[in-house]
Amino acid sequence: MKLATIRLGEATRAVRAEQDVLVDLGYADLGRLFAEDDWRTKAGIPAGEAATYPAADADFAPVVPAPSKVVCVGHNYTNHIKEMGRDLPSHPTLFPKFADTLCGAHDPVEKPAETAALDWEVELVVVIGRQVRRASGAEAEAAIAGFTVMNDVSVRDWQFRTVEWTQGKIWDSSTPVGPYVVTPDELPGGTRPTLEVKTVLDGVVMQQDNTGTLLFDPVALVEYISTIITLRPGDLIATGTPAGVGHARDPKVYLVGGETVETSVEGIGSCVNVIVKV
Amino acid sequence: MKLATIRLGEATRAVRAEQDVLVDLGYADLGRLFAEDDWRTKAGIPAGEAATYPAADADFAPVVPAPSKVVCVGHNYTNHIKEMGRDLPSHPTLFPKFADTLCGAHDPVEKPAETAALDWEVELVVVIGRQVRRASGAEAEAAIAGFTVMNDVSVRDWQFRTVEWTQGKIWDSSTPVGPYVVTPDELPGGTRPTLEVKTVLDGVVMQQDNTGTLLFDPVALVEYISTIITLRPGDLIATGTPAGVGHARDPKVYLVGGETVETSVEGIGSCVNVIVKV
Repeated sequence: MKLATIRLGEATRAVRAEQDVLVDLGYADLGRLFAEDDWRTKAGIPAGEAATYPAADADFAPVVPAPSKVVCVGHNYTNHIKEMGRDLPSHPTLFPKFADTLCGAHDPVEKPAETAALDWEVELVVVIGRQVRRASGAEAEAAIAGFTVMNDVSVRDWQFRTVEWTQGKIWDSSTPVGPYVVTPDELPGGTRPTLEVKTVLDGVVMQQDNTGTLLFDPVALVEYISTIITLRPGDLIATGTPAGVGHARDPKVYLVGGETVETSVEGIGSCVNVIVKV
Repeated sequence: MKLATIRLGEATRAVRAEQDVLVDLGYADLGRLFAEDDWRTKAGIPAGEAATYPAADADFAPVVPAPSKVVCVGHNYTNHIKEMGRDLPSHPTLFPKFADTLCGAHDPVEKPAETAALDWEVELVVVIGRQVRRASGAEAEAAIAGFTVMNDVSVRDWQFRTVEWTQGKIWDSSTPVGPYVVTPDELPGGTRPTLEVKTVLDGVVMQQDNTGTLLFDPVALVEYISTIITLRPGDLIATGTPAGVGHARDPKVYLVGGETVETSVEGIGSCVNVIVKV
């Protein structure tokens, strides 16, 4: 199944994509859908029994507008670790985002006046579909509702002001996530998917790798993070970015406003965002 | 005013402390109260017009059970920066907690089996009472509803596994916050309070300093963080900890289970927590 949260005026609706229509699933957003134990059944409602909307007109909200937590992983693609000059880590590196940090997959993204070093990071994102703590093996796999796409837009000058990255990673409405959540059964590799990830900046490929090269795969990340804290339906785990970010280029490339950035994961979809100088 | 969120069976209630009673303010918790524009008026309801509960029996929930964000500050007391061997920073160092990380002021705190380096950190916490973005001066001051106490319990071996502290700071139910929120008008120094902060471990003073020695004061932190992201009613900013943490002692001192840790801020109250080995 291919699921989304779309905006309808001031409200939002959880939907399932089916050919060229979006089927209303009866919930305000995917977070509320995933909070139901039998969400897979509810998400399967026949198109003929529900309201539908044309997919072409969709205005995508963040797939989960208010997750209780967004945990991001750094240093998780071998090539990106090397370009940043680091050794392969023995544990995942974790940092946060907050719900206010997220925006829709096709929303404009602001370049704040306070930064001169705005950068992109394409990421495969795990969407949690079941509450778990200290999950392992099959339980961790079963907690994965599906996968989506994030552009982990990063404010590099603030990220590296102090020893902690957080302040470069949580800017308001900076982080497109969506447009779709695709369930593992529809992806090669299932809960450990093997998909091409790619960033295209104004038509030029800047990042390109495969999620099969993740050091810590989605199931391992659910195990690791749920050791620390309860994962709840709708929570997001961004699995890290491959080589090719602007900050690691020579010369460095930053977003200044006016660009179009497309971050995509094969079989799931693309965030397409115009950078707007404010 | 001295405000709290207490547990009543499965529910919670926002209350105001008045002598030996707690006055029910008509909201489930302080986060919902602070979301009202006129919360100061609503919080002033006369004791005779509301339900009351004996203060002595109170079971404290986290002052705000589900803040949209908890932003913590590191390296903010001169003495603590020196004991960790660091230079005085030019910017605040920020890291996160999540709502699931919080617990009540008098709840037992688990020592997880996965750590051998559990530590304490007393902190003054800013509680936000008004939505702000890029606030400065009087607007930043007015966004401060009051102050509370946190023990920023830290899992040091996980905190220092990678370059990011987050995974040592977000353990489930690890972080007592409360018992009371005290409004700035009742504190010396107001929105820049000058209060003794202290940690007492089984009767022995381990940390003792004054919030007047903060490098970045509460108003400066509201200005800095709201530059990055919207602050919402109920959001928490933990302002950092002074010298005397167990990890910086020689020899190091860690919590192993069975201890009682009291973290207090003068004029606000104390978190008193028994450490429970699990």
